[in-house]
Amino acid sequence: MKKPIQITRRNMLGATAGLIATAALRPATASAQQVASSASTAKPLPSYVSWKNSDSMIIHTPTTIETKRSAIGSSIITPSDRLFIRNNLPAPTAADIGDVNAWKLSIEGVSKPETFSVADLKQMGFETMAAVLQCSGNGRGLFPGNPSGTKWQTGAAGCVMWTGVAVRDVIKALGGVSTGMIYMTGTGGEKLPAGIDPLAVVVERSVPLAAMQDALLAWEMNGEPMPLAHGGPLRLIVPGYSGVNNIKYIKRLAFTKDQTQAAIQKTGYRMSPIGQKGDPTQPAVWTMDAKSWITSPSPDSGPIKAGQVQIKGVALGALEEVAKVDVSLDGGANWQPARLVGPDLGKYAWRQFVLSMNLKAGQYLVSTRVTTKSGVQQVALSTENAAGYLNSSWIYHSVRINVA
Amino acid sequence: MKKPIQITRRNMLGATAGLIATAALRPATASAQQVASSASTAKPLPSYVSWKNSDSMIIHTPTTIETKRSAIGSSIITPSDRLFIRNNLPAPTAADIGDVNAWKLSIEGVSKPETFSVADLKQMGFETMAAVLQCSGNGRGLFPGNPSGTKWQTGAAGCVMWTGVAVRDVIKALGGVSTGMIYMTGTGGEKLPAGIDPLAVVVERSVPLAAMQDALLAWEMNGEPMPLAHGGPLRLIVPGYSGVNNIKYIKRLAFTKDQTQAAIQKTGYRMSPIGQKGDPTQPAVWTMDAKSWITSPSPDSGPIKAGQVQIKGVALGALEEVAKVDVSLDGGANWQPARLVGPDLGKYAWRQFVLSMNLKAGQYLVSTRVTTKSGVQQVALSTENAAGYLNSSWIYHSVRINVA
Repeated sequence: MKKPIQITRRNMLGATAGLIATAALRPATASAQQVASSASTAKPLPSYVSWKNSDSMIIHTPTTIETKRSAIGSSIITPSDRLFIRNNLPAPTAADIGDVNAWKLSIEGVSKPETFSVADLKQMGFETMAAVLQCSGNGRGLFPGNPSGTKWQTGAAGCVMWTGVAVRDVIKALGGVSTGMIYMTGTGGEKLPAGIDPLAVVVERSVPLAAMQDALLAWEMNGEPMPLAHGGPLRLIVPGYSGVNNIKYIKRLAFTKDQTQAAIQKTGYRMSPIGQKGDPTQPAVWTMDAKSWITSPSPDSGPIKAGQVQIKGVALGALEEVAKVDVSLDGGANWQPARLVGPDLGKYAWRQFVLSMNLKAGQYLVSTRVTTKSGVQQVALSTENAAGYLNSSWIYHSVRINVA
Repeated sequence: MKKPIQITRRNMLGATAGLIATAALRPATASAQQVASSASTAKPLPSYVSWKNSDSMIIHTPTTIETKRSAIGSSIITPSDRLFIRNNLPAPTAADIGDVNAWKLSIEGVSKPETFSVADLKQMGFETMAAVLQCSGNGRGLFPGNPSGTKWQTGAAGCVMWTGVAVRDVIKALGGVSTGMIYMTGTGGEKLPAGIDPLAVVVERSVPLAAMQDALLAWEMNGEPMPLAHGGPLRLIVPGYSGVNNIKYIKRLAFTKDQTQAAIQKTGYRMSPIGQKGDPTQPAVWTMDAKSWITSPSPDSGPIKAGQVQIKGVALGALEEVAKVDVSLDGGANWQPARLVGPDLGKYAWRQFVLSMNLKAGQYLVSTRVTTKSGVQQVALSTENAAGYLNSSWIYHSVRINVA
């Protein structure tokens, strides 16, 4: 059993000490990127996502595909063909789905339970929202303790424009949530493998009822019908909550007294101490935390020339607006405010930031730290956990840059 | 010679009178869409834009391709593969361009003239801006007088996220604009046909110097390197100005005392009275006007069922924020406020709007009218001009909807 690594405040104060302490905490980004790069070269895009931009992606497995750090773009919204893929079960085919407008969603745990088609939902309301979609395990590969699971770096995240109907509008039309319900439980419509207890494999997640307020039933992503690989015809978007809670191919939305007994909720996606199995007494992986990282310069985009350099990145407040982002070039000893760039797409979106610096030749350890509107600051260290979820540590996300 | 059609205020006041007057002013949308639809079926996408979503496009010619009204999506930003195409000269090939980062831009009419590569520019600054790109002739096909040129309906427009360096930052680094300059003149890098006076064909446009303030030299569009078909490696974005002023493949940016003598400026893109040729005494086609239209329901998306209907559309303030959008179902006799939907991407972007209505069977003439922050209201009628530029009339953009 590995122990979470402790770092003292004192380590972080001196530039040199901070740099050394930080460097010791994680594998060099360069070698991590080499792994990623060889993974990309080794495997072609699987056919269900053949429309992705292959040069932008790191293919870990056919169902775990991340965006290269430098390929996320600088337009806030992540292009659909560069957005990461993480499916717990194989995506249905177009033949499995048939007419997308005929896809059915049953709604339970409300005064008047009802089943709606996507066509029905499209006439019940209309909302568009930008929100970060981030795999619960994004940044797992940056934890020093080598937790099991896909070694995501920064690219299992994107900022997406979602269009659909607000869950609250649909529920209002059904007379409201039944008394005593405290969870919103969504069930995915993936075909389940035969001969296995459905509860062991179904993608069914419960989130606190309050998450309903800003949730969407979305049929469109970035201006196009929701791709099957991303959960079309209909996906539950729970902004501020990590990827797994945003149920793809949603076929049932239930307001419930208890969390689902599905393994993916009961024992999966739990913040389990290292060396322990998941169980329902441990915190569920629900909301994301404030987090930031640089996208350029990036170890995967070649050598950096001395002179004026635009240090760019993205920062999410997770549940509230980004107020500011600070950047350090010396592993956290000294910080300078970055400039936020481009329109503010709302509290669930991320912001872009830039710090323009004249860099001399040398080695820099670049760290970024976001502060939200209410003053929440990105944590220095995330608690490492058995499955490596919710890594939002600015230390673990620091990047070594060589300027020549 | 056709005379601009006059409509009196009195015509517009009574519901019936308004409906009849409006209907008389323009061809039925259904038949216009049929023309568009058969154009689409008849021609395949040209190879330089084979990556466009063919089902979403109306192919007028290989260099004039519009987005179907209903295909613009509901995510504010228009997906690149659905964005319209309008090129005055054939787009260069990748072989013509070579290394995109080595593309050169010369800057003249400043204290210290200089030539920069795209790689240089990328280290000089970083801005991201959402702005509507709209062909000067968008809506030409909705003018009643059948002006010559491509019969664009609503789809020669999109809202795009642009990333690049602010022109003002580059100019500041070069010591500012030389004294006495009153235009910003951009020259496109298209290969010119041999044996023709270059001034007759070059895409070179002058805009008032003030347009510099918010202009970008952009290398990225919607999170991906600027496609060649849209002006990559480098495009001048002049927000609030119609498409032709946003120079593709920009190779020279000059601050000048006079407007360019290129035909595309001197006699082209002028607001010429019907029956007259363009000349420099006529107003240049520069800034766009406040404008709106519905995207759904659309004549190209099939029959509409009676019941709750989401009437959706887009509205641009052109040079300032959208304050409100009103919708009429009776040709302008009665108006109801629509709801603005989704994040506000800034004054140069468009807003989405929706009006949720319970519609009985019947025929409706749907009109939309945007009002900007300072109180500018979308015009009832645009002055029809020889080349059918800048149609922003809410009357001409009214759409007949049949509900069964």
